[in-house]
Amino acid sequence: MFDIAIVGAGPAGYSAAINARKREKTAVVIGQNTGWLSRAHSVTNYPGLPDISGEALLRAMREQAGQMGAEMRPGVVHQILPMGESFALSLGADFLEARRIILCTGARQPRLLPGEQELLGRGVSYCGTCDGMLYRGKRVAVIAQGPEAPSEANFLSGLCSEVVYFGEADEALNPSVVVRSGKCEAILGQQKAEGLRVDGEDLPFDGVFIFREAAALTTLLPGLEMDGHFLRVDRQMRTSVPGVFAAGDCTGLPLQVAKAVGEGCVAALAAAQELG
Amino acid sequence: MFDIAIVGAGPAGYSAAINARKREKTAVVIGQNTGWLSRAHSVTNYPGLPDISGEALLRAMREQAGQMGAEMRPGVVHQILPMGESFALSLGADFLEARRIILCTGARQPRLLPGEQELLGRGVSYCGTCDGMLYRGKRVAVIAQGPEAPSEANFLSGLCSEVVYFGEADEALNPSVVVRSGKCEAILGQQKAEGLRVDGEDLPFDGVFIFREAAALTTLLPGLEMDGHFLRVDRQMRTSVPGVFAAGDCTGLPLQVAKAVGEGCVAALAAAQELG
Repeated sequence: MFDIAIVGAGPAGYSAAINARKREKTAVVIGQNTGWLSRAHSVTNYPGLPDISGEALLRAMREQAGQMGAEMRPGVVHQILPMGESFALSLGADFLEARRIILCTGARQPRLLPGEQELLGRGVSYCGTCDGMLYRGKRVAVIAQGPEAPSEANFLSGLCSEVVYFGEADEALNPSVVVRSGKCEAILGQQKAEGLRVDGEDLPFDGVFIFREAAALTTLLPGLEMDGHFLRVDRQMRTSVPGVFAAGDCTGLPLQVAKAVGEGCVAALAAAQELG
Repeated sequence: MFDIAIVGAGPAGYSAAINARKREKTAVVIGQNTGWLSRAHSVTNYPGLPDISGEALLRAMREQAGQMGAEMRPGVVHQILPMGESFALSLGADFLEARRIILCTGARQPRLLPGEQELLGRGVSYCGTCDGMLYRGKRVAVIAQGPEAPSEANFLSGLCSEVVYFGEADEALNPSVVVRSGKCEAILGQQKAEGLRVDGEDLPFDGVFIFREAAALTTLLPGLEMDGHFLRVDRQMRTSVPGVFAAGDCTGLPLQVAKAVGEGCVAALAAAQELG
């Protein structure tokens, strides 16, 4: 059980972790930053560090959070379940428990495919490790949009008769995984997933696995009020769900490192105060 | 005429200046930071700079803002006058004009003395350079609570028959300035200031000069709505006065560098957007 679980490993998340530790709360940062900042050649408007690459800035913040005692967990949180006094977070086949949540999931909201939400758990899965056994000897599609896709596809290739991987070729992939290009447009099927529409063509599959960098906020935690594309928060960075805070790009414009660290700090101190 | 005048030279102010310049707006930062941060031995929770003295952190931000082309002005803004499309800021005897204002005045709100607001301009002054001539050959008191007090007292000592300085002895003071200790409790007088109550004793003076680190927000700009001791702002850091933004400790808890730089960034980008 952690005091505070931070979903998202960018500046907001690291700032939240640093400030949670400053208040002597246990904290875990979940995710790996593969967003725009990690590829930014030069950030010139973060106060105190006049000209630094995005990657170096992220590394400095990550090390600082780690040195202060925050735990780091790679992975993608698929769902957050309120359980009265705490929350359960599912990361693939793993679970974490925490008393408070800070969402730092960034600005990019994945767009769900038509049929995805309706068929989730009925042929559509976000977790190979959890659900792979259900597809032993069957044909599955992998929609690869996140860092876990290659390893999950490899895991599935040991169980399934065929794994078709829609995404960029990756040298880490097992040779038995079939890589295909094309735009995945919809999940097909009524009672259960039966295939995938790719570039207008309907392809039959027994199951469809989707691996993204982050879960869509609407599937992550029910009841989160939005303000357009962004999470609605108050000045203490509280969302509409009690015990759940948000910080950084997911709360709205401007998408700036300084704003993110400020909000991460405010969210962590507000969460720590609730914990007493 | 500046695009943006930033009142207060702490992390919020420097962050606002950096981000105003990033949007190619002209910017001036007014003030000298003599607050708690400049005396902080070690700041450990500012993301990206794991362990830095407050002084070094302020210097780094100040240099960054300067290198990006922000102007720096020492001094205290005594009043801000809305003039339609712009604002006039009075700094002692000087004036500045700016199209937008960002208040970054910190958490410490000076407490006005009884009688101060009522007798302002009638024996009570915040500016020796402006009003000293009115007290030629007379006896004045100086209430020294800001960095300008010694030089202003010296200026007054060249005009007045006696200058009594309530504050800490300062080697920069002219020998003719009389330094006294004691707690200044009230300005005396009905139609005009006639003296000062110090430690319960009523002392006669022809005028009272008060030099503080910052003006009280209520005298700085009429119409600013407060939320307790802090300025009321929205998520874009707008105050209740159109064209006037606020950032940092003056907007509320937590009093943290990360929050200040985040708010300074948001305020500057919102102000820049208004300017088009």
